[in-house]
Amino acid sequence: MSDLTIWTLDWVPEMPRGFVRDLRLRWACEEAGLAYQVRTIPFDDRATNHLDRQPFGQVPFLDDGPVRLFESGAALLHLARKSEALMPRDAIGEAGTLEWTIAALNSIEMVTVPWWFLDVTGVKENGLTGWMSQRLEHVERVLGEREWLAAGRFTVADLLMADVLRVEKLRAFGDRPATEAYVTRVTDRPAFRRAHADQLAHYAAADAARTAS
Amino acid sequence: MSDLTIWTLDWVPEMPRGFVRDLRLRWACEEAGLAYQVRTIPFDDRATNHLDRQPFGQVPFLDDGPVRLFESGAALLHLARKSEALMPRDAIGEAGTLEWTIAALNSIEMVTVPWWFLDVTGVKENGLTGWMSQRLEHVERVLGEREWLAAGRFTVADLLMADVLRVEKLRAFGDRPATEAYVTRVTDRPAFRRAHADQLAHYAAADAARTAS
Repeated sequence: MSDLTIWTLDWVPEMPRGFVRDLRLRWACEEAGLAYQVRTIPFDDRATNHLDRQPFGQVPFLDDGPVRLFESGAALLHLARKSEALMPRDAIGEAGTLEWTIAALNSIEMVTVPWWFLDVTGVKENGLTGWMSQRLEHVERVLGEREWLAAGRFTVADLLMADVLRVEKLRAFGDRPATEAYVTRVTDRPAFRRAHADQLAHYAAADAARTAS
Repeated sequence: MSDLTIWTLDWVPEMPRGFVRDLRLRWACEEAGLAYQVRTIPFDDRATNHLDRQPFGQVPFLDDGPVRLFESGAALLHLARKSEALMPRDAIGEAGTLEWTIAALNSIEMVTVPWWFLDVTGVKENGLTGWMSQRLEHVERVLGEREWLAAGRFTVADLLMADVLRVEKLRAFGDRPATEAYVTRVTDRPAFRRAHADQLAHYAAADAARTAS
């Protein structure tokens, strides 16, 4: 048994498959060569059945022996401290990784996730479109100048930023060739492909179990 | 000269005063007893005049000797590594601080800032209200059960969460007594009051300089 346990839902509908955020933690462990297991909580009653582990009723959360964390961004930074594959060990490289990890969460996802939410819930006019467009253009400028966000190499900041940007509605939003090349490049990594395939297999097995029962 | 330099704007209009995010970093330094200086970039042309330091054209950013960071959340986590006053040193206390810091950025601010943006830009119906209400109710439940978010004591996670929640429109949104008591308690700390007063004084001095010139 590994000390690392990634917790996710036992089943989800088709739509979020391949995007449930346990994928971020699977992917990080695959990049770092860290052994881990996946455990689940029931999809039914998920809004209230694990508030002691995730106070907003979401997944994933992580056990690292006695250390337990919720928030995928926090779990990624915790894993990054365990492996140089995810974050350089020098102060400048570490700061660059940290700032771009937070940028993915608080400068990009803070606009893209609510924009997506308004879009799928069918508002007539999405009031976040202009703001999101500006933020994505800034990312496009940066990615036009460099291959990786921090430290001249792949880090956990790229893992997170690519996961934020690979959402289909965002890839279809505007023409941002450097971003598209970046998303393609990062999600072509074997560790992403394994984590993605494993998440899909996990939910396919859950379908089979549901059908059999 | 201190090694720590907090960068902000040389002037801002009345409205954001007391809320420009350099306050988060001033506050953290005050809590930790870390010496720092404040330097500025021009408000005019701020969208493009410092993209080499902050790729989204925002403030603050931080110099710590040769280490430079943007994103207030990243700068806070960097400062927290320098002082136990901001984050406990044991693994469990550190994880608790990290997860709640990220929760403030990616579970709360990810909804409250876009909600606020839609509100001030005058959309007819704010499509984020229901989602925000749920998130704020979760925070209310947690704060009804404990005084501090992590480790049984004040940490940088409280600094950030209180800064996120003290926005007037959020305090006026719904009736959440535990949250209101928490915001009052945290912003009553001498370090917050000093940082807040210093930011107001900084911009008042900028007014005086503008008038004189």
